[in-house]
Amino acid sequence: MKGVQFVVAFVFFALASSFASASDPSPLQDFCVAIDDYKSGGLNVPRNTSNPVGSTVTPVNVAQIAGLNTLGVSLVRIDYAPYGQNPPHTHPRASEILVVQEGTLYVGFVTSNPENKLFTKVLNKGDVFVFPVGLIHFQFNIGKTNAVAFAALSSQNPGVITIANAVFGSDPAINPDVLARAFQLDQKVVESLQAKFWWDNN
Amino acid sequence: MKGVQFVVAFVFFALASSFASASDPSPLQDFCVAIDDYKSGGLNVPRNTSNPVGSTVTPVNVAQIAGLNTLGVSLVRIDYAPYGQNPPHTHPRASEILVVQEGTLYVGFVTSNPENKLFTKVLNKGDVFVFPVGLIHFQFNIGKTNAVAFAALSSQNPGVITIANAVFGSDPAINPDVLARAFQLDQKVVESLQAKFWWDNN
Amino acid sequence: MKGVQFVVAFVFFALASSFASASDPSPLQDFCVAIDDYKSGGLNVPRNTSNPVGSTVTPVNVAQIAGLNTLGVSLVRIDYAPYGQNPPHTHPRASEILVVQEGTLYVGFVTSNPENKLFTKVLNKGDVFVFPVGLIHFQFNIGKTNAVAFAALSSQNPGVITIANAVFGSDPAINPDVLARAFQLDQKVVESLQAKFWWDNN
Amino acid sequence: MKGVQFVVAFVFFALASSFASASDPSPLQDFCVAIDDYKSGGLNVPRNTSNPVGSTVTPVNVAQIAGLNTLGVSLVRIDYAPYGQNPPHTHPRASEILVVQEGTLYVGFVTSNPENKLFTKVLNKGDVFVFPVGLIHFQFNIGKTNAVAFAALSSQNPGVITIANAVFGSDPAINPDVLARAFQLDQKVVESLQAKFWWDNN
Amino acid sequence: MKGVQFVVAFVFFALASSFASASDPSPLQDFCVAIDDYKSGGLNVPRNTSNPVGSTVTPVNVAQIAGLNTLGVSLVRIDYAPYGQNPPHTHPRASEILVVQEGTLYVGFVTSNPENKLFTKVLNKGDVFVFPVGLIHFQFNIGKTNAVAFAALSSQNPGVITIANAVFGSDPAINPDVLARAFQLDQKVVESLQAKFWWDNN
Amino acid sequence: MKGVQFVVAFVFFALASSFASASDPSPLQDFCVAIDDYKSGGLNVPRNTSNPVGSTVTPVNVAQIAGLNTLGVSLVRIDYAPYGQNPPHTHPRASEILVVQEGTLYVGFVTSNPENKLFTKVLNKGDVFVFPVGLIHFQFNIGKTNAVAFAALSSQNPGVITIANAVFGSDPAINPDVLARAFQLDQKVVESLQAKFWWDNN
Repeated sequence: MKGVQFVVAFVFFALASSFASASDPSPLQDFCVAIDDYKSGGLNVPRNTSNPVGSTVTPVNVAQIAGLNTLGVSLVRIDYAPYGQNPPHTHPRASEILVVQEGTLYVGFVTSNPENKLFTKVLNKGDVFVFPVGLIHFQFNIGKTNAVAFAALSSQNPGVITIANAVFGSDPAINPDVLARAFQLDQKVVESLQAKFWWDNN
Repeated sequence: MKGVQFVVAFVFFALASSFASASDPSPLQDFCVAIDDYKSGGLNVPRNTSNPVGSTVTPVNVAQIAGLNTLGVSLVRIDYAPYGQNPPHTHPRASEILVVQEGTLYVGFVTSNPENKLFTKVLNKGDVFVFPVGLIHFQFNIGKTNAVAFAALSSQNPGVITIANAVFGSDPAINPDVLARAFQLDQKVVESLQAKFWWDNN
Repeated sequence: MKGVQFVVAFVFFALASSFASASDPSPLQDFCVAIDDYKSGGLNVPRNTSNPVGSTVTPVNVAQIAGLNTLGVSLVRIDYAPYGQNPPHTHPRASEILVVQEGTLYVGFVTSNPENKLFTKVLNKGDVFVFPVGLIHFQFNIGKTNAVAFAALSSQNPGVITIANAVFGSDPAINPDVLARAFQLDQKVVESLQAKFWWDNN
Repeated sequence: MKGVQFVVAFVFFALASSFASASDPSPLQDFCVAIDDYKSGGLNVPRNTSNPVGSTVTPVNVAQIAGLNTLGVSLVRIDYAPYGQNPPHTHPRASEILVVQEGTLYVGFVTSNPENKLFTKVLNKGDVFVFPVGLIHFQFNIGKTNAVAFAALSSQNPGVITIANAVFGSDPAINPDVLARAFQLDQKVVESLQAKFWWDNN
Repeated sequence: MKGVQFVVAFVFFALASSFASASDPSPLQDFCVAIDDYKSGGLNVPRNTSNPVGSTVTPVNVAQIAGLNTLGVSLVRIDYAPYGQNPPHTHPRASEILVVQEGTLYVGFVTSNPENKLFTKVLNKGDVFVFPVGLIHFQFNIGKTNAVAFAALSSQNPGVITIANAVFGSDPAINPDVLARAFQLDQKVVESLQAKFWWDNN
Repeated sequence: MKGVQFVVAFVFFALASSFASASDPSPLQDFCVAIDDYKSGGLNVPRNTSNPVGSTVTPVNVAQIAGLNTLGVSLVRIDYAPYGQNPPHTHPRASEILVVQEGTLYVGFVTSNPENKLFTKVLNKGDVFVFPVGLIHFQFNIGKTNAVAFAALSSQNPGVITIANAVFGSDPAINPDVLARAFQLDQKVVESLQAKFWWDNN
């Protein structure tokens, strides 16, 4: 019964903060049970980018730092191999601001219908760029060396949808008829795409 | 100078409501200048669906009804030809709730990384389905007759991003190197896709 | 103890999403335990409107579809008998956008003090109208046939306050002195009203 | 042209703050042009309550203090004659917290459908009560002396809808057929009510 | 096991309201278990101000009235001895609107960097003043008699940070090197300040 | 008149986006007039830290990148001389997440009344720390070499209040009586502090 009691205590505790955080930011004192809830580490370590897309995203959001709860912001480090890319993706719950640490990136985003206008820039070390909430965007390392960027997102849990993976690599697969017509591809091409391995860099 | 005065008056007027609407809902009386700001019509009329995707979306948002400003909701009517589809797309600023008026739709959405789980359902007349904000989703008319659905969105201006159009039909085109690697397609296939005509059904 | 463990697991689970949803929209994957959480049905079926007000409201909100949680939108179907009405009411937590499916409705809303301006329109099939958050509004079927409308609301749980019911049919009754003076009615009239049966069409 | 230039400058100025205040609270320095934008006075002066409802509401919101813009809070003073009342009303955009300064008030609010539960309390000097957003509520001075209360509202522009005034005193009048059926009153009674003078105490 | 069941029931209950309150205001009926959740008392009683700062703050927020949960507003009473002060402080989660009940207050707030402009006013009985969210502000009783003010805050749980206490009286103490340089004080002065007793008037 | 026309056009344009951004995120296409609205540069350049506090903050917010408007996020680079500090300050409108790029920082924040608990950590290269909205916090370079950090804030315009500057360096000065009592300092010490030069590192 000890365990149950503990859980019950925890639950009341958690509900207290849940209650408080509903429409205004939550009180601090209710959920900072340990100092380490506000710290995380290792964001200086270069990541292995030997993967199909040639990039790796390392997130620091509410899953890594519980103290971020209700604070509306999170961080990622992105490592790019030469000619690696962070492929076209969206964040369903956040806008993004990115700063280049090392290397040269070609970055862009596409606006919504009907224009679908592509905005791109070449970013060098120290350049900053903004990706508005929900828009498809990408980064491409156009230099011969590794590149590194840090990006901040306007949510404690922004979510990531890698477009190709979600479209052709969903589990289970989307009806190939739908994708063939939507993407103007032969149905066999769609099925061969759906049979491929889709690497998730974040 | 008459025109300038009018503009000035309009601007003060508009600013008043803009001010008021910043962090709480805006007062009504400030911007309801004419009764027709709250009404629109013609949503009963079947739309022409003779287009490459076999569907047409008719929106009623703040662009059609000015009185929707700050109200956080809007509507669309969707007509589907037999085997027509509303191709995979996202709304960067809204969730959606859809009700089928006529016909039978196969609908679905894909969750974010890393699961990219596909949730689908076959919907008949009177069925309701929900598409959470920012997720890729689609509807496909699997019946032999026209289908019609109405959908409500949790924003006065939800935005639409048709995935294939934004990826392969952006203006200007995304670097084919980026897309070839991201979509595991031959670069020539990407370029042929980028040369195609991308129909925008909404 | 099995049951307790399950509950505990559920609670942690639920809290996780509750935490996440505090100031930004909640992550999908945390609470979509079953596909049916996103679907509901039967909104095509005409409702029985043989009741004192001659209308019936059928809601589809978070109580019907759990997957609507945090999505900020919901739906209703409204059936009207000939000359039936959806009597004057407010939604304390949502604005509304309504589209007429069948029949002809006379609709209106009243702005707040001091103007209390009435905005009305006659709506035919396919017409759309907007009711801003918290304002008193109504629909009246002025045709000789049944009417049907669909309406979307900018909340997962908009709430409904039928004015006459809340004023004269509350449980327990409001002090008749208060209502007699407020409504400029004889106290006996108030008491006879309070003794009546107040039908709740939603 | 001087005036135009001034307006243009003002407009840019105003837009700057409008921009900044969109999704987060607005910066101070952009719109506090004069110190008096943060102050108002005279809330200590007893108001004349010789009116049909026997109460007077004195608001201090963004219309009185421009500096309240985007701050999400406002204030009212309410004076009650003996047996006077602040008749049943709602605030479409705010919750309310009230503290009694002088006298004894019988206060209450009614929850939404289907319960329409009435919560009431007798409040003495120093007592505090809460009225949730959008719900119908009232205060009634049950003492033989004047009463005074102060109330705070969770919006810079909460709005007030006095129920009887909006229903029977709207401009123009609501169709008496609608009200007769909704309020279970004879149509002649409705018309006589609509012909009365509806006093607006705020 | 009875207790566990009760807790479980409570938890589901609480989660239900927690769920509902995520991005829109919470439904009333889910958490108003007792009428007293909406009432508190005693705000008319003068407080003892015999303390180092000569003032006492009496809060009425969600900790005192559970029914304030998700309503985004709360209240305080402030008593000031002659020449007493509510020392410089901030509210991390709320703006404030203050009305003087008795006496004469010199009040002010300081804007953010780089201007750090001080806005002050002398307030007499019935005057109202506004303190924007997060800015340092104070009230000083410049009269020879007690003063009383009421203030409303735009959060159910606004928080208070008394600047001197948080800087020199934190637990444990901030590194004196940091404070000596930041405040241009001799390190010994800092240490003597840190050794003092810091009275918390709220 | 040409200029006026241009302004008028701009104003309508701006109002359109202002309208749209009131309660939901703003549409992109309405205000991205030029691609450079999404880019800024030079965040790689070490800043001069030869100043009284030994640190310099370089912001990238909506004042530097207009495209950040309504996106709810911004960035800063902070350079620290050996033993330099970013002195105790608050952000009235944002939480912060900080990652150390170079060097070793001792960082901390103080919770609100009544605990005023100090949470500190020593951060090395790659460590991440969180500062909740409105709380007093600081960073201190405890290493013998320069340090660099990047921080993201949950607002397009977070604001900064350096505590010592706002308290002792406001313009005009706060009444020394108030500060002497609040900070338990001799009035002459307060006046000498108010006469000093207060350096603003951001």
